[in-house]
Amino acid sequence: MTPAQRSNLGRLLNPRHIAFVGGRDCLTAIGEAQRRGFRGAIWPVNPARSEMAGHPCFASVGDLPEPPDAVFLAVPAPAAVGVTAALSRAGAGGIVCYTAGFREAGPEGAALEAALVAAAGDLALIGPNCYGAISYLSQTALWPFAHGGDSPRGFGAAIVTQSGMLSSDITMTRRGLPLTHMISCGNQSVLSLEDFTDFLIDQPGVRAVGLHIEGLRSIPRFHAVALRAAANGIPIVALKTGASAIGAALTVSHTGSLSGSDDLYDALFARTGVIRVETPPELIETLKFLVVAGAPKANRVAGFTCSGGGATMLADRAERIGLSFPAVPDTLKPGLAGLLPPIATVSNPLDYTTPIWGQADRTGPVFDKAMDLTGAAAAVLVQDYPAPGLDESAGYYHADAGAFLRAAQARGLPAAVLATLHENIDPATRDWLAAEGIAPLLGIAEGLGAIRNATLWAERRADLAAAPPAPLAPARPMARLRGLDEAESKALLAAAGLPVPAARLCDGAGLAAAAAGLTFPVVLKMMGPRLAHKSDAGAVALNLGDSAAVLAAAQAMPARVAAYDPAAVTDRFLIEEMAPKPVAELLVGLRRDSEFGPVLTLAAGGVLVEILQDSASLLLPETPERIGAALSALRIAPLLAGYRGATAADREALLAVICRLQSLFLSRPDLAEIEINPLFACADRAVIVDALIHVLA
Amino acid sequence: MTPAQRSNLGRLLNPRHIAFVGGRDCLTAIGEAQRRGFRGAIWPVNPARSEMAGHPCFASVGDLPEPPDAVFLAVPAPAAVGVTAALSRAGAGGIVCYTAGFREAGPEGAALEAALVAAAGDLALIGPNCYGAISYLSQTALWPFAHGGDSPRGFGAAIVTQSGMLSSDITMTRRGLPLTHMISCGNQSVLSLEDFTDFLIDQPGVRAVGLHIEGLRSIPRFHAVALRAAANGIPIVALKTGASAIGAALTVSHTGSLSGSDDLYDALFARTGVIRVETPPELIETLKFLVVAGAPKANRVAGFTCSGGGATMLADRAERIGLSFPAVPDTLKPGLAGLLPPIATVSNPLDYTTPIWGQADRTGPVFDKAMDLTGAAAAVLVQDYPAPGLDESAGYYHADAGAFLRAAQARGLPAAVLATLHENIDPATRDWLAAEGIAPLLGIAEGLGAIRNATLWAERRADLAAAPPAPLAPARPMARLRGLDEAESKALLAAAGLPVPAARLCDGAGLAAAAAGLTFPVVLKMMGPRLAHKSDAGAVALNLGDSAAVLAAAQAMPARVAAYDPAAVTDRFLIEEMAPKPVAELLVGLRRDSEFGPVLTLAAGGVLVEILQDSASLLLPETPERIGAALSALRIAPLLAGYRGATAADREALLAVICRLQSLFLSRPDLAEIEINPLFACADRAVIVDALIHVLA
Repeated sequence: MTPAQRSNLGRLLNPRHIAFVGGRDCLTAIGEAQRRGFRGAIWPVNPARSEMAGHPCFASVGDLPEPPDAVFLAVPAPAAVGVTAALSRAGAGGIVCYTAGFREAGPEGAALEAALVAAAGDLALIGPNCYGAISYLSQTALWPFAHGGDSPRGFGAAIVTQSGMLSSDITMTRRGLPLTHMISCGNQSVLSLEDFTDFLIDQPGVRAVGLHIEGLRSIPRFHAVALRAAANGIPIVALKTGASAIGAALTVSHTGSLSGSDDLYDALFARTGVIRVETPPELIETLKFLVVAGAPKANRVAGFTCSGGGATMLADRAERIGLSFPAVPDTLKPGLAGLLPPIATVSNPLDYTTPIWGQADRTGPVFDKAMDLTGAAAAVLVQDYPAPGLDESAGYYHADAGAFLRAAQARGLPAAVLATLHENIDPATRDWLAAEGIAPLLGIAEGLGAIRNATLWAERRADLAAAPPAPLAPARPMARLRGLDEAESKALLAAAGLPVPAARLCDGAGLAAAAAGLTFPVVLKMMGPRLAHKSDAGAVALNLGDSAAVLAAAQAMPARVAAYDPAAVTDRFLIEEMAPKPVAELLVGLRRDSEFGPVLTLAAGGVLVEILQDSASLLLPETPERIGAALSALRIAPLLAGYRGATAADREALLAVICRLQSLFLSRPDLAEIEINPLFACADRAVIVDALIHVLA
Repeated sequence: MTPAQRSNLGRLLNPRHIAFVGGRDCLTAIGEAQRRGFRGAIWPVNPARSEMAGHPCFASVGDLPEPPDAVFLAVPAPAAVGVTAALSRAGAGGIVCYTAGFREAGPEGAALEAALVAAAGDLALIGPNCYGAISYLSQTALWPFAHGGDSPRGFGAAIVTQSGMLSSDITMTRRGLPLTHMISCGNQSVLSLEDFTDFLIDQPGVRAVGLHIEGLRSIPRFHAVALRAAANGIPIVALKTGASAIGAALTVSHTGSLSGSDDLYDALFARTGVIRVETPPELIETLKFLVVAGAPKANRVAGFTCSGGGATMLADRAERIGLSFPAVPDTLKPGLAGLLPPIATVSNPLDYTTPIWGQADRTGPVFDKAMDLTGAAAAVLVQDYPAPGLDESAGYYHADAGAFLRAAQARGLPAAVLATLHENIDPATRDWLAAEGIAPLLGIAEGLGAIRNATLWAERRADLAAAPPAPLAPARPMARLRGLDEAESKALLAAAGLPVPAARLCDGAGLAAAAAGLTFPVVLKMMGPRLAHKSDAGAVALNLGDSAAVLAAAQAMPARVAAYDPAAVTDRFLIEEMAPKPVAELLVGLRRDSEFGPVLTLAAGGVLVEILQDSASLLLPETPERIGAALSALRIAPLLAGYRGATAADREALLAVICRLQSLFLSRPDLAEIEINPLFACADRAVIVDALIHVLA
């Protein structure tokens, strides 16, 4: 996005005038602009009509009184290119190109789209093939369908989606999420999701950005923008779809772009403080909590219910998602018990029990005390309001909610009233709570998930501030690769100072001499281009105690290998000293992803690789501290630390090997891929027991 | 539940007359009975009032014209006992005892509750300390708070809860779930959740039963009832809470009963075809799909959206929960492609794309064809209806929904219209769909979960019909236990025909003679009461190749053990032949749970026990087939089957050992606990390498 495009995007989203170019769709769009309450000039452009929705028509964009800040464009694709060129020449601001029939429609459309991009110049163009854009701050709608949503207090969440239908569904929700912007990206031919995000995080009133992502255009750009958002204190919450096999295929089919490897998106989000959610409801609830209540300073929540069953459900869910309801210390329990009816039990979450239900003078002190005694950084009150028409008791609920919000406000705690079932907070109550800065959260799973997400964001943001990640190392185009065999791979690693077993490479005749220079026991391996799977091929003999054993093994090996693959037999052997028994086996992988650049993968190694599916991927470069943290998050980490009284691995040596592998990989662009499996984590060292390297051919 | 109680429960839930005994709470309850539309006689009983809600009061229950079928009782606890006795003597039907102050209030209350139970006799008593009961079939409400819910077509789900507040919240939901009954169990002093379930599964109109369970009273009773429900074709869906540490503690505190081991509840539910859900919304959506649409015959769903993003989200979620959207076979794709716009891609889920949106004559044939080509056993259409007041386009949605439901109806497929966001199907549309037998499902996670749960129920029900589980083996009271050492444990197992290594037990002087009778290599272990952790104590020497090595090891061992614990040293040794290297190591545990009876646990053994947390528990007795299935569901199962070309374990031998262990355990009530870890699964046998048995002292 050029500075001119950025400035024009500002004009597009806060326009003095909107030109609506087209026919029937423009009629609807003008209606939506009016429904939104747009106060600026509305200029329909249509050579065949004299007026639209009460506004006189212009015959062409050239007839407009001045270059429009915003244009809603809905003419057939070929014509759209010409109109765009004219608007660009005239100095218009931006265009929502609703028109479809571009890249998504085949090769002809793709050519038209290229022409559209060329015609746009410095224009801020959204689309084509999009729903459009809405600013709830400037009361601007450039939107061809009925839309809802609002921003009652001038702040809220900006949402950018790669699905038009989802953007529409979200504007239609009635959940009390204040919105500042809704942008449907469409084909992203000029401006992309990364550009919109970059723009939105600087807009006053935007307290959080919600993204629906099918695939990013530029990972480094997103990386930079997301880090800037974190620095700005603007949370980004992402619904990334296409994780499933069918979903990934669908994403390719309807966007024409790869959805990308899902675990690399996880790595990207973790690195940049972006919070990932699983469903649209969780997206909305998370944004709502962040925008209305804010991010808690710590993962310490005080929870309240007026039902034992409710408190239990709250605790169950919280444990599952890692949200912490810290207990009241035993010595302090009497202070809270004294405020509660005798049948109540002091706990967190706390069932304050029906005898004091709805009596703010009784429940208020309970809320105050419990928030203090649990050292809460956030608070949640579970209330399911009765249905309309059955709400004789609503006053009791409101009394407790009022006492709760005063307690939370007095302490400056982000807080929520949470309905177990989504529909069980009525709109008036939702509005009241939101106006008081209390998030009305809907649904126990999404609601608690929202609070957990907000705590996670605050934690990650603090980490980022303490040690800002470096820019991503560049991705490089993939070329033809050549595989090195184990001996070549290990020689390369040894030359780089990495620990491989002492070894000799020789032919059959040289075995005895080679073995003599090593400390027994040793391992004998036949090397050859067709021996990628040496164990399966019978090309490995372990634990050879002396030279005679080496020679015997070398004599037996050709027949065994020949049985596996006659063409695989060679006269090239690697003799290695046996590595000591490891505390644990790891897999360390380094590869270059075409979108994400160099990637480090850590996993449980050996036979556990697929059984455990225990791995972590990191985008590079990464610091030793974060690599160490990823190591500690593996399920086999307890083995490394000395499991059940067993010896611990030399963690420092292990980490040093991994970091040195990273340095080597980043400094040598000719290395396409390194796979170490296993890396033995031993008690006193780390040893690379097998390695396979691919280099650019 | 006696036959008389059962019959009286029938009277209570379908009464000709209701006596309301008490004051202010009865006024509300009479109002609720009238709100429900109760047509029978309403008899207030209150000596201090002449009328209540327009009905003349009786001074005491003795003055009633005849014994009432139903009584709503809301007088203080001590008085409630006397009234209950009088009603029981008079031959009343049942009582909802709303009154609290019984067991939950301490020792005095517990004594009152015992008196209440004695007084009740054959009465069907619900509570005390409960919200009450509602029958939407007989238009009966015995309920002291505003309540909602309905059963517009005379069938629905019956719900029984152990949380009054949750029962109220559920009647207040507006999700289109038809209800037949709502029962809040309270203290379950007379009738329990098991009794209500037993009764409800026989009631015409009850198509499914939803349970909120904090803890069951009788596992064997529930087991029998749940199997009867499955045989009747009535699904049971259970929300079992208290899985978390805090949640379990809260359950004890507010119900006075243990929540039970969560994995044993899982085992119970799996064995009896009960579907477990995680949240109240999932409970409701699952019941709705089962009640309105029915259970699919197979896990094959045809999915439809009018949005690429929507199809992707559907696919992502389905893959995560194991719901299957089978692909259209490639050769058949043209048949469907011909009905779609050119920009559409044939897939399942299918984005049928906006060019044909809302045109039933175009979308109908697509729905028909796709359901046929995918061999669908169920169907789902994603639609998020516009918000009220913004719904100019609702007609298009309705047109597609109509075409969809006709296609599903023509094929007899259980089907749903699913809103991504819960609030995005308006009440009129929900009612229309439900009347057509199409479930209006709310929320992508809970909605797809509901369909998956329904398919799971059908699968489990078929399994149960094919091989009905035996009644549970009885639980036995726990007494003092005595541990056998490894030698004693293995001798006991060997005597029962189980494979343990050939071994000799001897003192130091007898070692040479003992070793001579074995095949080397052997293992030497010191036996002693303080040597439960032999490896840690240095009391194990592996891989001894000859007698000399055995003697040397035996000589070195006392000093090593003494360094660990001087009092642990003994002169008692076990010499065992080394077991062959295993394909995998398993843990097999057998123990007696005080509620669930004997339990078999299978897990990854050795060092992987805690790292993998890979285990399955089964209630006993269990068939070899189901034990085999549990084995196959372990994460280490691929190792057993021969991982990556490695040798497979002798599965038959392994299963035979596990089944023989079960037989031994069930036939010997003196065995309290058996733990085998590891059980070596070898290529040609299974060997018990270590065993620890506890017997009743």
